[in-house]
Amino acid sequence: MTAAGDTQRRQRADARRNIAAILDAALACLSRDPDASIGDIARTAGVGRVTLYGHFPTRAELVDAVFARTLAEADETLNTVDLTGDPRAALARLVASSWQIVNRHRALLQAAQRTIGSGRIREQHEIPHQRVQALIKRGRREGVFRTDLPTTWLMAAFHNVLHGAADEIAAGRLNEKAAGRTIVATLLAAFTAPGQLVQQVPL
Amino acid sequence: MTAAGDTQRRQRADARRNIAAILDAALACLSRDPDASIGDIARTAGVGRVTLYGHFPTRAELVDAVFARTLAEADETLNTVDLTGDPRAALARLVASSWQIVNRHRALLQAAQRTIGSGRIREQHEIPHQRVQALIKRGRREGVFRTDLPTTWLMAAFHNVLHGAADEIAAGRLNEKAAGRTIVATLLAAFTAPGQLVQQVPL
Repeated sequence: MTAAGDTQRRQRADARRNIAAILDAALACLSRDPDASIGDIARTAGVGRVTLYGHFPTRAELVDAVFARTLAEADETLNTVDLTGDPRAALARLVASSWQIVNRHRALLQAAQRTIGSGRIREQHEIPHQRVQALIKRGRREGVFRTDLPTTWLMAAFHNVLHGAADEIAAGRLNEKAAGRTIVATLLAAFTAPGQLVQQVPL
Repeated sequence: MTAAGDTQRRQRADARRNIAAILDAALACLSRDPDASIGDIARTAGVGRVTLYGHFPTRAELVDAVFARTLAEADETLNTVDLTGDPRAALARLVASSWQIVNRHRALLQAAQRTIGSGRIREQHEIPHQRVQALIKRGRREGVFRTDLPTTWLMAAFHNVLHGAADEIAAGRLNEKAAGRTIVATLLAAFTAPGQLVQQVPL
């Protein structure tokens, strides 16, 4: 083991620690204020602006990275949800795990909308979108979810009702304790075809 | 009639014309690009920046004014919609008139979200919100719309499904010709209580 090798390893470990501290700080700052500045984030991370810019040359790259890390963490949680069995019960379980993630990261999403744009946000949502899509498609095949409207539209409804609930909670018009049940009750009805009975929320 | 009076009247007429030209230009520019600058808008209006700033001291005041004028015009259209009779058919008529207004002004709404904020946007939406609220409340009293979820939540669903449709059209995932029927079919189902049959879209 050489002294030069030691130095390199120490520098790499420092860089990893700095990146983690910057991403943690960015998440904390952007969650409080979607317009939080690079200066705020560097200060919170305890690093200089030059160090921050060394890792993330633009604010957009930093927002992109923290958004990607947050989605990857969310994905680990959502991967544990059992999506087998009755598609309605599976939808209820997926909503129960999803809405709190959406609600917690409402301000971060606003930062991403203002910085990286809706096209890139959608790219980053590919895995959660595929999960919702697979469940809706199975529900349609099994005759449980409506087929008179396109799958992409039902996916949009899933997305909009979850994000709409986060907005209503933030505005003080929806009780956080009632949110999960309210979202499921809305989506189960919205996914029911004309001429069919709306089912109770399965629990 | 004095020469001074003439001059004053001419100045007031000039000011009115300038304000109208600035608001027209702001609507055109912000509809193309929600981040359109004061310079772009002044150029399109054919007035100098000093003249524009004389009427609208900040970009936010200009966005606020063009948003208010657009909502007032929308309101004139929506006031002609017959909201009597079967609440479901009334909802279908209200959606048919509303969604195109929402769709046409999607970029202007984005400009407003970035500039004047969601609290002020909501204040400006008071009249359309009251219209939707009155219809939903009547539908609930008449046993047609669900009462297991709050009226405010059903109003949010109305808002989110309409705006979500505009996003889906902009992204090329929803056919503009199918949008009205798709929105109505989604809301009628979403507004149906558990244990009730979802009705066909009335036309």
